[in-house]
Amino acid sequence: MGETNKTAITPTREEDYPEWYQQVVKASDMADTSPVRGCMVIKPWGYALWENISKILDGMFKESGVKNAYFPLFIPLSFLEKEAEHVEGFAKECAVVTHHRLEKKGDKGLVPAGKLTEPLVVRPTSETIIGDSFAKWISSYRDLPVLINQWANVVRWEMRTRIFLRTSEFLWQEGHTAHATKKEAIQRTNMMLDVYNKFAEDYLAMPVIKGRKTASERFPGAVDTLCIEGMMQDKKALQAGTSHFLGQNFAKSSGIKFQSKEEEEVFAWTTSWGVSTRLIGGLIMAHGDDDGIILPPKVASSHLVLLPIYRKPNDRSRVMEFTQNLAKELKAKHYHNQGLEVEIDSREIGGARGWEWIKKGIPVRVEIGPRDIDNDSVFVARRDMGHRDKKSMKREVFIGQITDILDEIQNNIFDRALEFRKTNTVHINSNKEFYSFFTPENIQKPEIHGGFAMSHWCGSDKCEAKIKDDLKVTIRCIPLDDNNDEKGECICCEKPSRRRVVFAKAY
Amino acid sequence: MGETNKTAITPTREEDYPEWYQQVVKASDMADTSPVRGCMVIKPWGYALWENISKILDGMFKESGVKNAYFPLFIPLSFLEKEAEHVEGFAKECAVVTHHRLEKKGDKGLVPAGKLTEPLVVRPTSETIIGDSFAKWISSYRDLPVLINQWANVVRWEMRTRIFLRTSEFLWQEGHTAHATKKEAIQRTNMMLDVYNKFAEDYLAMPVIKGRKTASERFPGAVDTLCIEGMMQDKKALQAGTSHFLGQNFAKSSGIKFQSKEEEEVFAWTTSWGVSTRLIGGLIMAHGDDDGIILPPKVASSHLVLLPIYRKPNDRSRVMEFTQNLAKELKAKHYHNQGLEVEIDSREIGGARGWEWIKKGIPVRVEIGPRDIDNDSVFVARRDMGHRDKKSMKREVFIGQITDILDEIQNNIFDRALEFRKTNTVHINSNKEFYSFFTPENIQKPEIHGGFAMSHWCGSDKCEAKIKDDLKVTIRCIPLDDNNDEKGECICCEKPSRRRVVFAKAY
Repeated sequence: MGETNKTAITPTREEDYPEWYQQVVKASDMADTSPVRGCMVIKPWGYALWENISKILDGMFKESGVKNAYFPLFIPLSFLEKEAEHVEGFAKECAVVTHHRLEKKGDKGLVPAGKLTEPLVVRPTSETIIGDSFAKWISSYRDLPVLINQWANVVRWEMRTRIFLRTSEFLWQEGHTAHATKKEAIQRTNMMLDVYNKFAEDYLAMPVIKGRKTASERFPGAVDTLCIEGMMQDKKALQAGTSHFLGQNFAKSSGIKFQSKEEEEVFAWTTSWGVSTRLIGGLIMAHGDDDGIILPPKVASSHLVLLPIYRKPNDRSRVMEFTQNLAKELKAKHYHNQGLEVEIDSREIGGARGWEWIKKGIPVRVEIGPRDIDNDSVFVARRDMGHRDKKSMKREVFIGQITDILDEIQNNIFDRALEFRKTNTVHINSNKEFYSFFTPENIQKPEIHGGFAMSHWCGSDKCEAKIKDDLKVTIRCIPLDDNNDEKGECICCEKPSRRRVVFAKAY
Repeated sequence: MGETNKTAITPTREEDYPEWYQQVVKASDMADTSPVRGCMVIKPWGYALWENISKILDGMFKESGVKNAYFPLFIPLSFLEKEAEHVEGFAKECAVVTHHRLEKKGDKGLVPAGKLTEPLVVRPTSETIIGDSFAKWISSYRDLPVLINQWANVVRWEMRTRIFLRTSEFLWQEGHTAHATKKEAIQRTNMMLDVYNKFAEDYLAMPVIKGRKTASERFPGAVDTLCIEGMMQDKKALQAGTSHFLGQNFAKSSGIKFQSKEEEEVFAWTTSWGVSTRLIGGLIMAHGDDDGIILPPKVASSHLVLLPIYRKPNDRSRVMEFTQNLAKELKAKHYHNQGLEVEIDSREIGGARGWEWIKKGIPVRVEIGPRDIDNDSVFVARRDMGHRDKKSMKREVFIGQITDILDEIQNNIFDRALEFRKTNTVHINSNKEFYSFFTPENIQKPEIHGGFAMSHWCGSDKCEAKIKDDLKVTIRCIPLDDNNDEKGECICCEKPSRRRVVFAKAY
């Protein structure tokens, strides 16, 4: 690892981005594949990140009046069938429970037995089962709004899976709300999109575009799906969170009715919104480099690692003592309402030790040797800078500045990601240029696609489908801001268009 | 509700304990049954309690060096079969996934399709799937110990279910550790039992007996199962947590091997330990009264509720203002490293409002009316006292004393539960007396059973089985303390015995 050009991760992003991703997940010790098709094992370093993500989001939800609850893992098939579009959308990828015990059967060993009268589907999402509860809980306008969130595992039997990005089982939160009026439900849909937007940008340091999905990309059963879309380093888009206005569709299929102030029996208006462990995949792809992951300090599994260094055995005790004391002082500090998480790695495994932490993406590494101690100093390396770019700092100064350093890293990686997105977002007005932009042969490396094309779209399903068929490019969203409202011609059919939309390849 | 003898819950505990339990769960708004057989819906008031339980336990686990991770929901059938006793123990109550999509089939509507090559079992517990990861993670003694915990849902297809106590799906934590030596694994088994013991007594205010299960009551595949057992108000025992020493059984079946310091390849020693949402059922049955639940302040979903009271509409603003200010001051306080959780209930629904909070078991209720404000006072009621037993307190005094009041309630309900257990624990030496103690006809009410009988047992499976068959009484545990070590004669066969054990009916 001593050579200047050698990277900790092989291949590099430029050489083979998808393979780089798999390798970086492995090298960072975040997660692993499992013997169960498409299911992952989230290892402690990855799970600590998810815990931080959950804790922060949970606080934001509660701040907005939402309460947590828990609903059954299993959904009776008849429930799923209540909403026609919904079941259509999920039927192709459902794990189905059909039996409730195992029985010995001669040579075959154990086989499923005790067939269920009605098959149960392992929840791919919970609108229908939560709708059943809402129907019981709600009878008067006084019961509204109902604002519920659930932290849970869900299962979607995906054909092609990739750790964190698309797994058969994943962890997520799903918010479900019911309101007396359409206006209030739409407000909540927007409010939760804003929460996701804030979380992605302020915590994950991932700039995102807030927008509306086209009809073909909507959540099955929704009237309107809002989303946030980020750009990964291969210039593909990643949908990082969605917020759905469900109109009265699910209220009607689940019977969520209430007596209004005017004493009429009416259906409620509902919303649902979710983010998942997919965010971790996004975070890795937005910030990682050829040496591993770079964790945004505000969600990092841990903030800094202390690496005691000594050659002579009799230096050990004073180096360790200095390290322990430093850790104690650092742990007493606060960073954005959390404690400062400090690791001490005293394993005697040579240079591999520092590299492990680089690959894991810990924001700050601190080397402590006898000479540093003589100067009352520490040797500090930041993960957002080159791995040789270390700086000696007086102990007291370092302790005083550590939270500022973490904030600098946080801001720095956000700025880098924003700059990257800006560089790779282009206004394209001609069909020829558009096709050229998205054709791999025209790009340096086949794995690296064009980026975000801000182009006009007439609004027809046909044009959207043609572009998808031709180029595997989809409309990621119709941005919510009005910067893109202008007259123009559809990039596909040249018919009049009133705004530009975001076209990109996507995960 | 104005009559002196009327209770908020019908029937009372004495009238019909099992039915009282169902009613109290319902009245407290903690949870509800669901349309999925044996699965429950945990409502916000119940889930907030579970969140507190999880948070505190999670901190205790981490303090002991344990890290969280997450493993697949599904276990391939072949994995479960690796440990013979284990699969034997769970085969009768497994939810089995056999298909991965749904397909339209004529009139029948959707039916399961895409049959899996190997059925997947929804985890009833995760020893075998986590063992597979441990086998990959561990190769040298330097990798040990591995100390992992998982917060998850599990499924056991129980025949008879009761909310919180025995449900097909429940939430729990399962700790799994691997060690280089037998001694260390046994130490960890004991250490985690101590964590559970401390949590049950110090937080749930539930006195428990630490003990060892007999062979017939062991976890399937364990070498030794330790447990904590509490006494409910119907004098039945509730197993509130278990910690298993698994020996090398699962290490052998999963291939968890490592190179020892002496460079030999040897199997690791493993443990597992868990508590679940069952604790909530235990908490309800240990403390609840005929007016509803009584929540121990240290885990309570919320600590106190402010109830503004006014008759004249023009009193409203000053009562609300006083209430809001009081809430603000209270929320700034800390209670055992948590914030103080304060509810304001300003619904204009009359006396039903106060009763709702009594039924929900909130530790402290505070009434605030114009006359209280005139005296700069509040009117305080404690849930551990009678519902009419209210006290006027100066505002400042109340704010100053609230955390002490909460501690008093916590200690009070613990003392009550301990006293109850003591009263209902008896040393029984004669077989006749033993049978009489556990025969319902001999007790006032058939639903109320004898209690804990501390009696001698020779150690034979036969005697244990006979008593179970005759009386539905089991050996809850062989206490770990040595207070019960003395010579005597088996309560069943009169053969020599070296110690008393805890006999009781149980949940």
